[in-house]
Amino acid sequence: MKVGVFDSGVGGLSVVKSLIEHQLFKEIIYYGDTARVPYGTKDPNTVIRYSLEALEFFNNFNIDLLIIACNTVSAYALVELRKRAHYPVVGVIEPGVQALQNAIKQHDASILIIGTRATINSQRYQSTLKGLGYTNLHAIPTGLFVPLVEEGIFEGKILEEMMNYYFDSLSTPDAIILGCTHFPLISTALRDHFGGVPRLIHSGDAIVEYLAKVQGVVSTHQKTNLSLYASENVEGLRKIAKAWLN
Amino acid sequence: MKVGVFDSGVGGLSVVKSLIEHQLFKEIIYYGDTARVPYGTKDPNTVIRYSLEALEFFNNFNIDLLIIACNTVSAYALVELRKRAHYPVVGVIEPGVQALQNAIKQHDASILIIGTRATINSQRYQSTLKGLGYTNLHAIPTGLFVPLVEEGIFEGKILEEMMNYYFDSLSTPDAIILGCTHFPLISTALRDHFGGVPRLIHSGDAIVEYLAKVQGVVSTHQKTNLSLYASENVEGLRKIAKAWLN
Repeated sequence: MKVGVFDSGVGGLSVVKSLIEHQLFKEIIYYGDTARVPYGTKDPNTVIRYSLEALEFFNNFNIDLLIIACNTVSAYALVELRKRAHYPVVGVIEPGVQALQNAIKQHDASILIIGTRATINSQRYQSTLKGLGYTNLHAIPTGLFVPLVEEGIFEGKILEEMMNYYFDSLSTPDAIILGCTHFPLISTALRDHFGGVPRLIHSGDAIVEYLAKVQGVVSTHQKTNLSLYASENVEGLRKIAKAWLN
Repeated sequence: MKVGVFDSGVGGLSVVKSLIEHQLFKEIIYYGDTARVPYGTKDPNTVIRYSLEALEFFNNFNIDLLIIACNTVSAYALVELRKRAHYPVVGVIEPGVQALQNAIKQHDASILIIGTRATINSQRYQSTLKGLGYTNLHAIPTGLFVPLVEEGIFEGKILEEMMNYYFDSLSTPDAIILGCTHFPLISTALRDHFGGVPRLIHSGDAIVEYLAKVQGVVSTHQKTNLSLYASENVEGLRKIAKAWLN
């Protein structure tokens, strides 16, 4: 099976990491729109427009499935993408919600949702979780984590002060939805900040579970062939891929 | 005189502020490429391509002069812009260098240049200053200040930790070139960090001086008419303009 993975930039590589570890696909075509990253600070209409342009890129590859490895795109453009694509399109929000449901059964458990401004403003996580009966939700846009991760900073004082700033009066949640594919990189720091307590929901792991359940995708028991494309600086993308995926 | 001001996003408003305070122009047309901001993390070729597209925008306005209120665009695209424009195009780097020359006469004075990764990598400030005989230069890419300023954070612990991170082993410089039009917003914090010592070179003030000297532009003694345009979210740009320009 040949799968396309689309992200606004490099963050989606954290999803690719899970896909590769579980050997789900024979071939992955990754496309990052690095020339226009980030999407998470941009308008819904801009995000939709850029996402539809990415579809044109994948037209060259005859893919069987498209994975949207970006929460912001998943929040705003999934409906439009599905209308136009001739193959299934899977986002990260539905898988994330299902993973949360599997992990946390009590409906009054406190759930922290973090993501870009665009993702949080879309209310996609919040309204879906409310619809499922979860009552104790805290949604906080934590966009400054994104450039920090892109700078290669996953721990230390800047990050600590950012967490103090964003999570100031918040008591320790039972679970955190990492609603941005950059955030798995700071999992350890987030867990440390909250005393190791919260269960973290990671888009990559969530989508592996979801693909098995909903699309019937199981391990190929073969190494994955990964091809990387970017709208600019594919060399930079390759470097980060080497660092994140070993 | 009708002037165009181009920036990758909102940062150029700090230059507009100086232009308005000095009542240099009857009319300012500001265009921010907010749909593709930031430029400072992107490739030179992408910066040039986007900048030339912005020229097309100004074709609608019959301007007499174009000011590039963005250091990254000034560093990479000025030559190409000048080739294609039918009016003078002024960047911020040459004015910044001239302002530094006016302020700092000793060639062994220590000069800190801060800017985006793209601006610092271009070596434009460094090579020009070296050519003028300055020997004690420290150029540091401080890109994380940009999203912080865009978040409206101009002081406090996150910024302090970022300054500790970037300026770790650096002793207090005699002058700092604010090589990004976002950075005047954190002037106070920068000055405090270095014990109030350094002279700050601000693109907006530098360009006012430069326009008088090189283009013969002097005060109109009239209020400036400012029109704001953006490739997305012009409402967001207006809000920031209200906050920064009062």
